[in-house]
Amino acid sequence: MSVDTDSEAREQLIDLAAQFYDQFADGDVPSMEVPTRTKSNIEYDAEKKVWVYGDRTSTRSANSVRGAQKLLKAIYTIDFLAQQLDEDRSSTLRELYYLSESWDLDEAQFSSQDESNDLVEDLEIVSGATREDFHMRPEESGATIMGPLKLREQTRRGEREIHCQEDVGEGGYQIPNNPDTIDFLDNDADFVLAVETGGMRDRLVENGFDEDYNALIVHLKGQPARATRRITKRLHDELDLPVAVFTDGDPWSYRIYGSVAYGSIKSAHLSEYLATPAAQFVGIRPQDIVEYDLPTDPLSDSDVNALESELEDPRYQTEFWEEQIELQLDIEKKSEQQSLASRGLDFVTDTYLPERLTEMGVL
Amino acid sequence: MSVDTDSEAREQLIDLAAQFYDQFADGDVPSMEVPTRTKSNIEYDAEKKVWVYGDRTSTRSANSVRGAQKLLKAIYTIDFLAQQLDEDRSSTLRELYYLSESWDLDEAQFSSQDESNDLVEDLEIVSGATREDFHMRPEESGATIMGPLKLREQTRRGEREIHCQEDVGEGGYQIPNNPDTIDFLDNDADFVLAVETGGMRDRLVENGFDEDYNALIVHLKGQPARATRRITKRLHDELDLPVAVFTDGDPWSYRIYGSVAYGSIKSAHLSEYLATPAAQFVGIRPQDIVEYDLPTDPLSDSDVNALESELEDPRYQTEFWEEQIELQLDIEKKSEQQSLASRGLDFVTDTYLPERLTEMGVL
Repeated sequence: MSVDTDSEAREQLIDLAAQFYDQFADGDVPSMEVPTRTKSNIEYDAEKKVWVYGDRTSTRSANSVRGAQKLLKAIYTIDFLAQQLDEDRSSTLRELYYLSESWDLDEAQFSSQDESNDLVEDLEIVSGATREDFHMRPEESGATIMGPLKLREQTRRGEREIHCQEDVGEGGYQIPNNPDTIDFLDNDADFVLAVETGGMRDRLVENGFDEDYNALIVHLKGQPARATRRITKRLHDELDLPVAVFTDGDPWSYRIYGSVAYGSIKSAHLSEYLATPAAQFVGIRPQDIVEYDLPTDPLSDSDVNALESELEDPRYQTEFWEEQIELQLDIEKKSEQQSLASRGLDFVTDTYLPERLTEMGVL
Repeated sequence: MSVDTDSEAREQLIDLAAQFYDQFADGDVPSMEVPTRTKSNIEYDAEKKVWVYGDRTSTRSANSVRGAQKLLKAIYTIDFLAQQLDEDRSSTLRELYYLSESWDLDEAQFSSQDESNDLVEDLEIVSGATREDFHMRPEESGATIMGPLKLREQTRRGEREIHCQEDVGEGGYQIPNNPDTIDFLDNDADFVLAVETGGMRDRLVENGFDEDYNALIVHLKGQPARATRRITKRLHDELDLPVAVFTDGDPWSYRIYGSVAYGSIKSAHLSEYLATPAAQFVGIRPQDIVEYDLPTDPLSDSDVNALESELEDPRYQTEFWEEQIELQLDIEKKSEQQSLASRGLDFVTDTYLPERLTEMGVL
């Protein structure tokens, strides 16, 4: 949200419009090239340690009525975003879709929200800026932090200095839509523990795990929002903190870990900005289900399908994941993180997490 | 969370166990009577202005193996809850379910989460205390407040005084699981605006609506959690603030309004504690869709069914709702609150809300 980033993002958008202008001026049909965004065009960048788009590209060209209309919409959107950045305002993707109804040219209006969402993603990819740089807000932000961290948030109403234990209620510090408005001031943290469910997050806070182990407890709230993934990455990169991800023990939760550590196919152009490749998976592991004799539910058909699809996903083709997933397919069971309560409400903080995090080298 | 409430709730639970004991001692088969919890046993209490259970009751008696087992589980649960209150600890419903696996008697263990959830609701009804009084936490709390309100929250780590504009980031103040740990200290608020979607909540905060109109913006996050409904009610009752509910314009959103204003069938025993009968519905109204020519989506079959079922629900049998719902069935369209952006990003705060809230007598 700094003026520098704003004017940079604005310039990148204007450059894009200028490129269309130059194509026109040279007598060329205007076009814009974007990476093909499919599973088959995702590859591992060993240097950056994240999954990024491969070399295959698709061209959005004005050589058809449909294509010309797409570029027209892009131009109107660029105009809107440039003005939004000029005025230091912001909007949601959904507002952009509805706002297009007020544009003077009917042909420039979006016919569905998917269309405007896709366009903004295209603009992210082509400009190299992020949606947040354009001041586009998500519909829901949501997650919270509790732990020994003092930060400064730049809000529209001035700066706020907040300590994420001393200055917040039991609900914790609410991560804003764009966490790049945050500066980390001071911390006593040893690591980040990203937790899937609210029930477990509350258990850890009630048991004082953040205080006893100098942990920053980040609540993922299921599949984490971009803001949550971004701040987790920044905590790792800027404060040099290890990141451990603690979820339920089922294929959907392994995907939650994957979206923190590997990034997603849909936003592979942002992996460098959102993913924390060094993030480690705490559990619940299928091995825990066996070792701790946890209460379980049987795997459903869709669980089995999801596990099998993970076995075929290059991101999960490691010794650890193959072993765990095959064990799970074998025992045909899954467990929730709160099932650790079958050994008492303190088992997770007195035994499970300290042992596992020590084993992982986090403690 | 005060010691008084804790020991009161504990006593009410022990009384219940004592009642079983006395029944045994008198040679009677132990039993417990609870109101029948169905749509047909809901009636309007004109004095309290909320919907409550009627006179029909169901008996949980130990006169069958199944019934005896139910009461056994109740006793074990009472024992656990009494100990939890003694130690000033808390747990989630899910933890209770898993924890039962550690109980010494296999017959006392719950066979499903529904069973333990239902039992806790029975205990609420019979004891007259709330789940929060037992220190049972929900899985997710979630919602936030932004506005001119200073409060003090009693946390496990001591008291926190927080101003819900000056001491919070753009995400606002996170409502804790049990908002009865909050004291309202000071406020400049004229009313409460409860808002369904995150996108609209962020729009109002960005446009400074809470500052310009002294509004407490409560984010409902879809169907509101108990904590959100409870704090809304307390803001109304204790600070004498009118409550306006602002949602999308579809039958599911009218139910969100209903759960704030009327309470729900499932928790009719808590209507007095959770419902704000004086809450008014701002919109989006079907009439708005017509008057402001808002962008719409067609009604789906399930939308139509939900509207028709609302017409038959005694809680919606008012002139206002019948007119609006029939209009919507007639135009066969619905609109989201963010569709107001089709008239520009400031229309909602410059025109729509000021006009509507004035008309409603809130401003």
